[in-house]
Amino acid sequence: MSTTYVIGHQGPDTDAIVSALAYARLKATDDDSVTAARAGELNPETEFVLEYWDVEAPQLLEDATDEQLILVDHNEHSQTVSGAREATITEIVDHHRLGDVTTSEPIFCRIEPVGSTATIIAELFDEREVALDSQTAGLLLSGLVSDTVILRSPTTTDRDRVVAERLADIAEVDIDAYGKELLAQKSKLGEKSPREMVLGDFKSFEFGNSAVGIGQIETVDPEPVLDQRAAIRAAMDGIVDERDYDLLVLLVTDLLEEASTAFVVGEASDRVGPALDVEIADGEAFLPGVMSRKKQVVPPLESAFR
Amino acid sequence: MSTTYVIGHQGPDTDAIVSALAYARLKATDDDSVTAARAGELNPETEFVLEYWDVEAPQLLEDATDEQLILVDHNEHSQTVSGAREATITEIVDHHRLGDVTTSEPIFCRIEPVGSTATIIAELFDEREVALDSQTAGLLLSGLVSDTVILRSPTTTDRDRVVAERLADIAEVDIDAYGKELLAQKSKLGEKSPREMVLGDFKSFEFGNSAVGIGQIETVDPEPVLDQRAAIRAAMDGIVDERDYDLLVLLVTDLLEEASTAFVVGEASDRVGPALDVEIADGEAFLPGVMSRKKQVVPPLESAFR
Repeated sequence: MSTTYVIGHQGPDTDAIVSALAYARLKATDDDSVTAARAGELNPETEFVLEYWDVEAPQLLEDATDEQLILVDHNEHSQTVSGAREATITEIVDHHRLGDVTTSEPIFCRIEPVGSTATIIAELFDEREVALDSQTAGLLLSGLVSDTVILRSPTTTDRDRVVAERLADIAEVDIDAYGKELLAQKSKLGEKSPREMVLGDFKSFEFGNSAVGIGQIETVDPEPVLDQRAAIRAAMDGIVDERDYDLLVLLVTDLLEEASTAFVVGEASDRVGPALDVEIADGEAFLPGVMSRKKQVVPPLESAFR
Repeated sequence: MSTTYVIGHQGPDTDAIVSALAYARLKATDDDSVTAARAGELNPETEFVLEYWDVEAPQLLEDATDEQLILVDHNEHSQTVSGAREATITEIVDHHRLGDVTTSEPIFCRIEPVGSTATIIAELFDEREVALDSQTAGLLLSGLVSDTVILRSPTTTDRDRVVAERLADIAEVDIDAYGKELLAQKSKLGEKSPREMVLGDFKSFEFGNSAVGIGQIETVDPEPVLDQRAAIRAAMDGIVDERDYDLLVLLVTDLLEEASTAFVVGEASDRVGPALDVEIADGEAFLPGVMSRKKQVVPPLESAFR
């Protein structure tokens, strides 16, 4: 039987990686042809998670042409692994907007507006009556607290809170203490170049006929990033030229202040101010209360380009 | 609070109508702004069902522009109510291939490869811990046995069988006896014109850049239909001209023999033979074992046009 890869989006974050690992484990209980994969390099936070729970990284899938894929944590082609348009998508588990992936056959597709894909996968273990071991619970908890910024993001739902408590019990960790360790990793920009900062947690979208890229840096200490704004904007200009984006936005999100600073470049920059209801000055705007790209930035931008 | 309409596809069948009614009832337990609607006229089978269970038909929604919609039993725009592209889709519950509907915001989207949308909705009552009354169970059972041809279609899964038993218990009917009453209604072509036969249970698709229409007549007695092949083909030619289809297929499905006869018209007719692995003679082919448009006809045709 040919392999089926459970795989998250390009530029994988912790939720994408742990969702692939955990869902592959769940599927493998009755189908040993299923294995976890990833569509890019691990970020420092995810490396910390895998080390903490003593789990090997999923294998890197460079090209999915003619493969079978289960997509987790994404469902639009601008974010899929290379070759996915020529692959067979057999399932989707996600918590983002409904994207442009289509299939020929009916498939299992569970997309729900909760804080993390990990939340849905934890619930699927219950639904399929498969017990969660402490390692898998620890992985899923990591995706959940990472995506919800320890249950503080506006994307957080009651279901996330209930699932987080249960996972923390099974994994025997304290949600807050463990979450803060994670956030500290998220903020480790270390020796990253401006270009690496922009592309670290980066998603591409097709809004109408426009190509839009939106990066996000989540940190407890935004000053060192904001101090490099000139170099970052230059890197963004380079990415726009090279990849033909109509618009490129970088959100620098202050996890403690619960606000973001947005850098905006590209020909369609003038769409951003009206869409987000802010004034853009020198290609930059301060967005109080904005923490979620998915819930607070993607929908108004998508509407503006429709 | 503005109304949210739970609505099935154009040319609604029993599963589309009962799914809208039952899911609106489930949602209404905590949101009284939700109501059931329909995107077209009832077929004789569905009229029988509503009379049997003493339920009023959902209201006809002529134009969904600027409305809020929960889509049931479909998820592609070629099948949605008029105006749906300018509506806000807030949820989807379906059992068909993943179509081209997209959203700006994350939504609840449950699509699963089971025999009917009614099956999924019955399970959602359980998941949300809402008791099924006998009338709602009777409606859902009707959608389930109609779509699965009394659990005989190749789309039928074990979940459908389990749910059907439970619904029949609550509704206090015998699955087989009640199912046969339904099938008899399905076969009532009565005084239908050839055009009405083609468009009675009809779905439109965009495959690549081609417009494809696939109708289906399910009957326990195909002879009276097949005897009118010349008039039916003439009606199909008229529909192709009028609606610019590249391909129009009509499946005349013999529910007892578990086979279909396909009539094929349109410029792209030559794609059908290779796609379904049959010989088309005089625009007609016999398809042994083919009962499901969704599972046995749509996927190979979609691949052929990709």
